[in-house]
Amino acid sequence: MDSQQFREFGKAAVDYIADYFDNIKDRPVLPSVKPGYLEDLLPDEAPEHGESWQDVMQDVDQIIMPGITHWHSPNFHAYYPTAHSFPAVVGEMMSAGFGCIGLSWVASPAYTELEVVMMNWLGKLLNLPEEFLNCSEGVGGGVIQGSASEVTFIALLAAKEKMVKDLLEANSPLTEGEIKAKLVAYSSDQSNSSVEKSGLLGSMPMSLLKADKDGKLRGDTLQKAFQEDKAKGLIPCYVVANLGTTPTCAFDDLTELGEVCNKENVWLHVDAAYAGTAFICPEYQHYMKGVELAESFNFNPHKWMLVNFDCSAMWVKNAKYLVEAFNVERIYLKDKHKGLAPEYRHWQISLGRRFRALKLWFVLRIYGVEGLRKHVRDQISLAKYFEEFVVKDERFELCTSSMGLVCFRLKGDDHLTEKLLHVVSERRNIFVIAGHFNGKECIRFAICSRLTQREDVEYAWKEFLAATEQIVSSKAKITCEVTGKKILSAELTKMANHTEKSK
Amino acid sequence: MDSQQFREFGKAAVDYIADYFDNIKDRPVLPSVKPGYLEDLLPDEAPEHGESWQDVMQDVDQIIMPGITHWHSPNFHAYYPTAHSFPAVVGEMMSAGFGCIGLSWVASPAYTELEVVMMNWLGKLLNLPEEFLNCSEGVGGGVIQGSASEVTFIALLAAKEKMVKDLLEANSPLTEGEIKAKLVAYSSDQSNSSVEKSGLLGSMPMSLLKADKDGKLRGDTLQKAFQEDKAKGLIPCYVVANLGTTPTCAFDDLTELGEVCNKENVWLHVDAAYAGTAFICPEYQHYMKGVELAESFNFNPHKWMLVNFDCSAMWVKNAKYLVEAFNVERIYLKDKHKGLAPEYRHWQISLGRRFRALKLWFVLRIYGVEGLRKHVRDQISLAKYFEEFVVKDERFELCTSSMGLVCFRLKGDDHLTEKLLHVVSERRNIFVIAGHFNGKECIRFAICSRLTQREDVEYAWKEFLAATEQIVSSKAKITCEVTGKKILSAELTKMANHTEKSK
Repeated sequence: MDSQQFREFGKAAVDYIADYFDNIKDRPVLPSVKPGYLEDLLPDEAPEHGESWQDVMQDVDQIIMPGITHWHSPNFHAYYPTAHSFPAVVGEMMSAGFGCIGLSWVASPAYTELEVVMMNWLGKLLNLPEEFLNCSEGVGGGVIQGSASEVTFIALLAAKEKMVKDLLEANSPLTEGEIKAKLVAYSSDQSNSSVEKSGLLGSMPMSLLKADKDGKLRGDTLQKAFQEDKAKGLIPCYVVANLGTTPTCAFDDLTELGEVCNKENVWLHVDAAYAGTAFICPEYQHYMKGVELAESFNFNPHKWMLVNFDCSAMWVKNAKYLVEAFNVERIYLKDKHKGLAPEYRHWQISLGRRFRALKLWFVLRIYGVEGLRKHVRDQISLAKYFEEFVVKDERFELCTSSMGLVCFRLKGDDHLTEKLLHVVSERRNIFVIAGHFNGKECIRFAICSRLTQREDVEYAWKEFLAATEQIVSSKAKITCEVTGKKILSAELTKMANHTEKSK
Repeated sequence: MDSQQFREFGKAAVDYIADYFDNIKDRPVLPSVKPGYLEDLLPDEAPEHGESWQDVMQDVDQIIMPGITHWHSPNFHAYYPTAHSFPAVVGEMMSAGFGCIGLSWVASPAYTELEVVMMNWLGKLLNLPEEFLNCSEGVGGGVIQGSASEVTFIALLAAKEKMVKDLLEANSPLTEGEIKAKLVAYSSDQSNSSVEKSGLLGSMPMSLLKADKDGKLRGDTLQKAFQEDKAKGLIPCYVVANLGTTPTCAFDDLTELGEVCNKENVWLHVDAAYAGTAFICPEYQHYMKGVELAESFNFNPHKWMLVNFDCSAMWVKNAKYLVEAFNVERIYLKDKHKGLAPEYRHWQISLGRRFRALKLWFVLRIYGVEGLRKHVRDQISLAKYFEEFVVKDERFELCTSSMGLVCFRLKGDDHLTEKLLHVVSERRNIFVIAGHFNGKECIRFAICSRLTQREDVEYAWKEFLAATEQIVSSKAKITCEVTGKKILSAELTKMANHTEKSK
């Protein structure tokens, strides 16, 4: 393909994406394909001869698009948002267009340097303590990683490196191998699966401690776990605190956890993957209180800050522990600029890196701080709007509401909520998923798409109402799809009464 | 930014990329900026108000572009290539445009399904044994990862998982912890730094064994290392074989290594990051002989197969070891399609994934197998063309020539080659880097850009000649920039004589 054909193909693709967003609301949010659908539609082998881009685009429309789940539909309310914005899409394309690999400063100076400046911009926006920022004298700094999963694992490795070094320097009677075999990590039972995975990857058992009734991990719980493990001869090494848990967007108490960690010389890592974006608004920065006690901090602009996946922002107070955990030099990587700019390859798993700072720069400049704050505040107010519907309807129970996430349930037995989720899922007009809160089944309703507006929240609520009516009006005994248990008729009667009242 | 502005911005960016490639040859391959250049050109904080995309594009041209190293300039001959093609750039943009996260089948069925089919297409193209492919009954399969670094680490974790399981099932007297502390990994001293790093990441010491005089790791060397380690009570667990080493593109003997590994129940992983692309040409598949003895295989379409970074293709014979090493289930990840399609989140480090299969599909279809084979063969023939210049000139010594990489040196003391590299680097007309071969300094000359043609190879050779003349004509004693040693005048005289003859 020559550059002239690229001009045509690229512009047709730009129009395709623009059209897709212009009409995304008309598409059912969930695809209706069955597993294996695509294998039947594609040949068994790659084509011998090149095909035209027009043919490829036609297939994108006809066979790929039917298998896409529309994360940016205003009716998508599952998981947490994944970011999307037009400036970020162009940034991603230009990064691919330049096509360099930032494996060292000299391999493309702008790659490293823009990342340094962007991580400073972002850190200042969050009001992070200065020691986390890339300043010429300090040992702290920020780096863009691919995901919070990567970050949690990388911080674990750095914590391990630091603990081994500290203990050996303090003349521990243990060998390095013996120390490593005794290290333990901690987080709350509300943590994302990636936190537990980081323990598996890094060969450090991850204790998932019980959160309190609000979903927060508390200092005394952590202190107790440390004491119990130390009594067994184990060594507490690494704690992952959540600012915005996956199930309910709960915030651990950083000050409590940080004090316990600091006292015991344990690395505290803060995972604010989703909610961290809200800290660009001064009114939410109080959730970060105590962050100065942490060694590392992470949030994902690729979740809520309109920068397309992947762009996970990580800061550390002392980068030397990363570099020491990762540094493996070779002659082909030598260059004479060492020490003057960070060599980010020693801060991460892979050697190569894309120009992810570019899309971050595009988003920060084209939206401006003002535009990004407006986005966060608008989405939180939409969640509040939904919360009001839940609270006003007696048949429903609000479990939690935090940032852009509302967790709620039908009052009564869990089976009713399971049935509600089932019916809503079968109707396929909105996409929501199940959650748990304090041992009860609930539905997680998240404001995800940047296109979602008040009318879409109303539409979603009407879907829940219609599904509820459907359950009630069935009159017959209802069998729960998931557990197979029968739903009690007394509860149905109660709901029917509520339904009458709310009409 | 609304969709109309995106149409304008996106199309302007397409034109910018096309213009960049149309004129890339006119740019000096290396930038002339100094570390910290960008910090001086950018504000200290993110802008409060949004700016226009036109302003941002102007800054891309005026402050980013001067800090770019032009990897796709025909004068770029450093490292190994990183892939670039117009279809892949559009694929990357459309993946960002759809902006889904393939964290499970239901999260966007086309993401998983296209990847399954593409990994089959690619595996067939390489003529990989069928047990590596995604077939409905087998336990093997292919997956796209971000980099060879990730793959080497992931395969190490799977090897660890398998070894622990095998030993425990065989009633080993050791505990899981004791087994893990005794595991050892192996590769050759010619391996990429990422191989050693995988040992650091996975807490398994990586023994770098001496390659033979051709840069290959041999079976008897591996067998001896196994025996010595076993005598110390250690447990050989994981071997990384190279098909195309980073220093000289040497090929380990897979059959020899595989037989040793199979006898000892050790996981053999094959890293063909760069050279693997050549296996799409039947005449190079003989290098893979013995691959059926391996447990996992990896090559990077993002190096040489025209698919932009990141796209690292990995196949395993038995995916259950990956899944068991990584699987951490949560209610929000549950979906009812389990088992019918691979859940790739259990095959990798992160939970989220971009739609990387899309750019691979675009490249395979728009180039066709024919087009990709032509690209590989053309680049190898350009390396051969360069090799001829080296061989014909008596002052030079050919060290190795394999695929698109030629390693050569000035005859005589290492300092001459160091000086040559220094002068060529100072002239800044081409970009090459240093290498080592059999204890001697050499220069690595790689065919990288898909735009490089015979005239560019001639240009590069003339650069080496001009630099050589410059060294000789200086007459004075030359001090080596790197080591500080004086270069012997006898060698200079010898070179001067050669120079006279070659005129």
